[in-house]
Amino acid sequence: MSELTARAQELDAADELAGARKQFVLDEVVYLDGNSLGALPAAVPGRVDDVVRRQWGALRIRSWDESGWWTAPERIGDRIAPLVGAAAGQIVVGDSTSVNVFKALVGGVRLVSGTSRDEILVDATTFPTDGYIAGSAARMTGCTLRPVAPAEVPDALSGRTAAVLLNHVDYRTGRLHDLPSLTAAVHEAGAVAVWDLCHSAGALPVGLDEHGVDLAVGCTYKYLNGGPGSPAYLYVRRDLQDRFDSPLPGWNSHAEPFGMRPGYEPASGALRGRVGTPDILSMLALEAALEVWDGVPIEAVRAKSLALTDFFLECVSAYVPEGRVETLTPLAHRERGSQVALRCADAGDVMKRLIERGVIGDFRHPDVLRFGFTPLYVGFGDVERAARVLGQTLGDLAG
Amino acid sequence: MSELTARAQELDAADELAGARKQFVLDEVVYLDGNSLGALPAAVPGRVDDVVRRQWGALRIRSWDESGWWTAPERIGDRIAPLVGAAAGQIVVGDSTSVNVFKALVGGVRLVSGTSRDEILVDATTFPTDGYIAGSAARMTGCTLRPVAPAEVPDALSGRTAAVLLNHVDYRTGRLHDLPSLTAAVHEAGAVAVWDLCHSAGALPVGLDEHGVDLAVGCTYKYLNGGPGSPAYLYVRRDLQDRFDSPLPGWNSHAEPFGMRPGYEPASGALRGRVGTPDILSMLALEAALEVWDGVPIEAVRAKSLALTDFFLECVSAYVPEGRVETLTPLAHRERGSQVALRCADAGDVMKRLIERGVIGDFRHPDVLRFGFTPLYVGFGDVERAARVLGQTLGDLAG
Repeated sequence: MSELTARAQELDAADELAGARKQFVLDEVVYLDGNSLGALPAAVPGRVDDVVRRQWGALRIRSWDESGWWTAPERIGDRIAPLVGAAAGQIVVGDSTSVNVFKALVGGVRLVSGTSRDEILVDATTFPTDGYIAGSAARMTGCTLRPVAPAEVPDALSGRTAAVLLNHVDYRTGRLHDLPSLTAAVHEAGAVAVWDLCHSAGALPVGLDEHGVDLAVGCTYKYLNGGPGSPAYLYVRRDLQDRFDSPLPGWNSHAEPFGMRPGYEPASGALRGRVGTPDILSMLALEAALEVWDGVPIEAVRAKSLALTDFFLECVSAYVPEGRVETLTPLAHRERGSQVALRCADAGDVMKRLIERGVIGDFRHPDVLRFGFTPLYVGFGDVERAARVLGQTLGDLAG
Repeated sequence: MSELTARAQELDAADELAGARKQFVLDEVVYLDGNSLGALPAAVPGRVDDVVRRQWGALRIRSWDESGWWTAPERIGDRIAPLVGAAAGQIVVGDSTSVNVFKALVGGVRLVSGTSRDEILVDATTFPTDGYIAGSAARMTGCTLRPVAPAEVPDALSGRTAAVLLNHVDYRTGRLHDLPSLTAAVHEAGAVAVWDLCHSAGALPVGLDEHGVDLAVGCTYKYLNGGPGSPAYLYVRRDLQDRFDSPLPGWNSHAEPFGMRPGYEPASGALRGRVGTPDILSMLALEAALEVWDGVPIEAVRAKSLALTDFFLECVSAYVPEGRVETLTPLAHRERGSQVALRCADAGDVMKRLIERGVIGDFRHPDVLRFGFTPLYVGFGDVERAARVLGQTLGDLAG
């Protein structure tokens, strides 16, 4: 047994979160793609079956009340809230991340309407959809859109800045941006801070309330394991809710949705972020998936996440031929999310071979190998094996 | 046996669609609320279980390709297309009806941008969400919104009209509006016709292509039986697709979504109506639900629908004390959807009692009893029983 294998066993034996793994459906592969699609929580199939057969099939329309369908968006929002450092009553679940980015950015710009602020800053390294949607939000609110690297945001802020859209963790490199200081800088400039938490929620503490974030969005199918395309969420800070003016004022956000009134009057609170009829099957699958978080402090998840990525980088150094890959993910803990991105010239081919050998990561065009580490179900033995198989694969390709 | 009971038996015996009922999970109640939430198709539970356990649980991320997840929005759109008279390649499934109304109306107004057209007409009797969203679309495109009763639309059209949003069937009264002639009038005025098909798709022929409709939206959880909050759809007529300019240009609508390019370049065709990651569980439940339409011509569905509502009105006349209810639904076939709405002073109380007696309709504030007739699973015996129980209930209340 190699020294690293032994270390992995010791780390797994000491892992306080090791027990969470049994709450997921896993097999013999090493699944390091939970930053794209989280693994299936074991509670989900039975719950979904109940939703389909009993709630829909037998109770039918009665389930809107009796099975809690109507209130699911805010109830599940409250379940996500502690994971991102939000008190209850500020998050609603529903729609895709893209749609929520639109609500948040237009709503954000409208918070400073009546001023001369007419510029939206957007993370230039963002997952593309955020930039595309920000372009539409800018166009439809009379703003200009300016892409800026997150580190350049403080210098780019001005009296013209209306809102700033940033990713907490970069989807490609895994870099963690400094949410507290960037939010403070945005506020100092008098602008609105909108954060995309897709790659941080469920992997590390976010502290939305603590840091005074204005609006935030995130998906639920990565570290929150909600299932393919599961509904996203919108956070609107409590003291802004009465002024939040949604560009998608669907009937679900009305103060009296069943009043069927011709005039729109927005609901109070987080409900104002709802739009149309909630997508119940996906939403209640997500609710079941969130049960794995019962009693799991996000700080413990973060500690394990850093230990996993540290150990992976150490194993990669040991197993991978020198100079064959370049680490894109920052080494400093304060700058690292829960994934490791390695630049590798033949990354597409390498990932295909890794997958054939039972190590599932993903490839991002043109030359990036991404490995996501979900602390609830990835162990240190998985990490050592993944790095070892990567080393062997690169060795074989060189031979 | 009464004459109406005997008639019901004869009609059921002669019903060519009677066999479709066994494809649904039904029980001893008379379910006349399929215009709100369609009953569970028997194929759905097994399909959803496969999607959850095998596609998500075992294949995980590979299912985006191997299980056809990525192409589901357009594939399922093509499955809906024949039901609404559309050739393939013009419908995508995804998002809620409200979100699709926003895409369609903003996209519609943009089709006539560069002209002096600055007014959106909206059905004044619409399901409220369409009016609320139309208000937002108007506000964000610099238009004014003008609510008009559908019958008044031809007179209200002018050189200022940019787009007109109409419901094919009124959600409250069940009135069917004249899509061909209203669309022609809108076009004659040089404006864009947007139709909401929530209460007609799956109940009667729509003829989108035949009548030259520009854009259309609809939900899938009523007569299409897709399940609670199942994804809605957007139709963009083929010759308009290259000019369709979505206000929600998410990465799924990009010409090369996995190119991860900072600049937005829209896809060709119906794909342009996509936004974010598709909600797979709900979407594939819908796909399974649509299998009940295999070999079912929508014309046969319409014929049975009219026979059902005719027979219901006849039974109501026979069983309900004179003057106790008023029929809001037009008697003329060309003006009737697939529901019957009865005005009744104590409608809320009456509906509660009907439900206790196994007849499920719904109540719309302040005084409307709604009964929806889904020809695939409602029979003439159900209709007679519903009217008889209504008559008894109203008799008991009078006593």
